[in-house]
Parts: sequence; C-alpha cells; structure tokens
Amino acid sequence: MIRRLCILGVGLIGGSLALALKQAKGVGEVVGYERDPIARDKALSLGIIDRAELDLAEALRGADVVVLAVPLGAMEELLQAMAPSLKPGMVVTDVGSVKGSVVASARAKLGEYIVDFVPGHPIAGTERNGPEAAFADLFCLHKVLLTPLPESRAVAVRMVRMMWHQVGAEVIETSISHHDRMLAGTSHLPHILAYTLIDMLAKLGETQEALQFAAGGFRDFSRIASSDPSVWRDICLANKEPLLALLERFRTELHGIGEAIHRGDGAKLAEIFARAKAVRDTHYKR
Amino acid sequence: MIRRLCILGVGLIGGSLALALKQAKGVGEVVGYERDPIARDKALSLGIIDRAELDLAEALRGADVVVLAVPLGAMEELLQAMAPSLKPGMVVTDVGSVKGSVVASARAKLGEYIVDFVPGHPIAGTERNGPEAAFADLFCLHKVLLTPLPESRAVAVRMVRMMWHQVGAEVIETSISHHDRMLAGTSHLPHILAYTLIDMLAKLGETQEALQFAAGGFRDFSRIASSDPSVWRDICLANKEPLLALLERFRTELHGIGEAIHRGDGAKLAEIFARAKAVRDTHYKR
Repeated sequence: MIRRLCILGVGLIGGSLALALKQAKGVGEVVGYERDPIARDKALSLGIIDRAELDLAEALRGADVVVLAVPLGAMEELLQAMAPSLKPGMVVTDVGSVKGSVVASARAKLGEYIVDFVPGHPIAGTERNGPEAAFADLFCLHKVLLTPLPESRAVAVRMVRMMWHQVGAEVIETSISHHDRMLAGTSHLPHILAYTLIDMLAKLGETQEALQFAAGGFRDFSRIASSDPSVWRDICLANKEPLLALLERFRTELHGIGEAIHRGDGAKLAEIFARAKAVRDTHYKR
Repeated sequence: MIRRLCILGVGLIGGSLALALKQAKGVGEVVGYERDPIARDKALSLGIIDRAELDLAEALRGADVVVLAVPLGAMEELLQAMAPSLKPGMVVTDVGSVKGSVVASARAKLGEYIVDFVPGHPIAGTERNGPEAAFADLFCLHKVLLTPLPESRAVAVRMVRMMWHQVGAEVIETSISHHDRMLAGTSHLPHILAYTLIDMLAKLGETQEALQFAAGGFRDFSRIASSDPSVWRDICLANKEPLLALLERFRTELHGIGEAIHRGDGAKLAEIFARAKAVRDTHYKR
C-alpha cells in the first residue's frame, strides 16, 4: 500500500495510474502536480487526484512514491527541479517511452537519489490524451517494462513492481538498450511510417479523395497517426540512435522491395510477404 | 434481377458476392468455376454456388453476368480462355484491386466483347480468404469503384451498378489511372510497409521478443501483414508504375524525417506529425 503517491503530470497515463491504484485500494492519498490549469482542474473534478499542488516541493512532501508522467521533452527539467526536494527512501519512477534518455537525465540530475530511481514504461495507451481520457483499466493485462539500474535499491524496485501489479499489469525487467531498440521497431518506427504516409498523401493533394477510397485496413494501419504530435516528436528525439539505425535499415529494405517490383520478381515479393505473415500470425493467433 | 450469374473464382470476394445476391433475391442461379477442388466443394456445401462446372465454356453458358474473381495474376489467362465462349450482351466484370493491368488484358483478349466488359473493384475484404471466409454482408455500406471504358455499353454499366447496389454497396465511377494511383497510396503501399516492417524485425532476429513488447497500436498497424502473400504479390506486380513512383517518394519523405531527427529538428517533426493527425482526424471523425 502506497500511503501517499505523487503524480507529476496528470494526463492519460498518470491519471489512469492514479485511478487504477484508487480502484485497487492500493493508495492512500494522491497528490497531483500539473502545470496546465485546465488539466489540473479536470483531474481534481474527476477525482483522479485528491489534492493539486502548484509548488513542486509541496507536491513531493511526504510522498512514498513519485511518478514522472510528463512528456519525454519535459523530463530533464523536472528531474532537476525536484532533486532538492527528494528524501532518502522516496521511490521515484517514470513512464517514459524511451529509457536511455530519461536515465541519462536522472543520472545527471538526481545525484545520490539515483539509487531510489526505477525507470519504467507501461506499454499501454490510446491515441487520445489528457486526464479526461484516463481510465482505471488502462494497464490491466498490459505489460510494464522496468529497466532497473545497477545501483537501484532492491526495495525501490520491489515497490514499483508492486504498484504495477496492483493495477493488473505484468511487469518485465529488461535492459535500457534492449528496451529502446525493441520499442524503436514495434512502436516508434511504425508511428513514423503512419504519420509520413498520411502527410505524403496530403502533400500530393488528393488526400480526402484518396481516403474516400480507403478500406478498413487503412483505417487500422493509420490509427496511430492520430496520436499526439508533440509526444511523438519527443520520442523520436529521445530515441535518436536506435531509431535512425532502424529507419535507414527500413529504407534499404524498401528499396529492395522496389527493385523486386521493378524487375517483376514475384517470387521475392511472395517470400517476404509470406515470412511476415507467418511471424505475425504466430504472434497474434486468431 | 440476374437470372444466371457465373462466378469465376469462388473465394472471399466471389463467394461473398454470390451469398449477398442470393440474400437480396437479386439472382436466380449461381454457377461457379473454381480450379481448387477443396474450395469448389466448400462453395457447394456452403450453398454459395448452386452448381459447379469444371469446364469454362459450360460455366459461362447462358450467364447474364460473369464476374472474374480470381487473383490478378490469373486474370489474363482466364480472359483468353473465356473469350471464345462469350456471347453478345453477356456482361463481364471483375473485382481486381488494380484496374490498368486487367483492362490491358481485357483489351488484348476479349476482342469485340470488350464493349460488354465493365472493370470493377469492391473496396472490401478481410485478411482472411477462401469461400469459408465469405459472408453476405461483406459489401454492405462499402464502396465499389467502377472504371468503365469509353466503349463500354451503357446497358452493361447499368447492369453492374445494379448488381452492386443490390448487395448494399455504394458505386462510384472513376478513371483507371486515378483508381490505380489512389489505391497505391491507401492500400498497396501500406501493405508493403506493414509486410516489410515485420520481415525486417524478423531478420533482426528478435521478432518474438519485440512483439512481446508491442502495444495495441502495432497490432492494428500490422493487421494487413496477415493478408494473403500471393494476392499482394500480384497486386504489386500489376500496379508497378504508380506503386514504384509512390514508394520512391515515400523513401524520400522518410529520409527527410531521418534528417530532422538527426539534427534534432523537433519543430519539423511536430509539423509533419500534426499535419498528418489533422488529415486523419478530419476523415475519421471519432
């Protein structure tokens, strides 16, 4: 049981975590720190947070667990601002979609308190955002990836694991570099592909007409392009190296497909498509 | 009312059309021609077709409307084989996802009967295939694109329009080149992107683990990679020029994204992502 939880950034993820812990009776008081006054009021009126604090030091005071749920681009500044108010044993975790950049910021800003920092990433979300999009079941049956540091204290890691278990999530520990490489492939690059395709069609000037002709497959394929642009800008910049490596590799693969089409090499195309289908069908058993 | 309908290729599309017309009482007898004996028996036992003919000339005899519902790669051979059995006024249409290649084959093989040929493309489907996947509501509220030829007889076009109206579809007429360009963008290229991404992850050797970490967005994004590989091989080869042009353009756009990430140009990324989101949200009002 967390007696006092401090949520820094009360949007879809932070808000849903607060709601889920309350529903699971896994938290006493939830204190929220949110710069956007509209989101702050919304989080209060929806009962997501019990108390809003405008002052960061006040928000952190007496918290057992502090969750950084702000966009990646705001993490470093927040870590710096909160460091003076931390106390030994106050467990700090985050929900950032990229772990390398957050850990680098934490190492730079938290000083001795780094031992109580447990980097985390719940693999859950929707293309909607803000506290009004939050709901208690968001993490239920979803995975949460933790990337503890060599110096992370076992008690801090246990506390964060317990928190996520209480909201129905499956916790998996992995390394920072592995996390960032895997997510580049299954999340970050797909978002770029969906955004880029729609933007290209728009620039060709026939989007609305083209979308008129689009089938259900395109609707599903492009759903992630309705995600928050600033969130994904931050993710792209934070996961620069793994993402760029994968993006270049993808352009090369695409060039290969183009060559096969150009020379009429149906066997090559069928081989690639069949391999991809087999992998997907194995994973998503229908 | 179509007294006798001949379906050449009884898979998901041909089978669903037969079921839908029967349900709408828009057809007397449905005759099926299908080379795969398993699919043929299945179509008979499911009541999709009333009669199966092994001989193409027999299958065509006395039909008011003939629907070519075979994969694109099989169209030309079939058009050649059926030409000697056609009769004036026997309306022929197809369901191919690419119109330029089918029309070129039809012009080459149908001779004088080209006036009764109405190229068509129902924008409907699932990632499943075969007669067992067929269902009567597949086309309901979906669009069917027709690309009549300058020499198409009005009575033939009317007959095909009526057939699709009867199964609940909205019929839109457009040009062959416009159709093939639009579909390259909203259907053919997206399939290539989804197939290529999964195949690339597989080649990197960590797919199953990567997919373990994948969120719901990836599931939706990649659903089209579960489509039939041979169907999509045929489509890529049949729509070569428009698809290659778009694929190269997409690689260029992707390069631009990579450059923006490399130089840390968050404004550029946010601009592209926001434009794409706005276009998508406008079309798919939530």
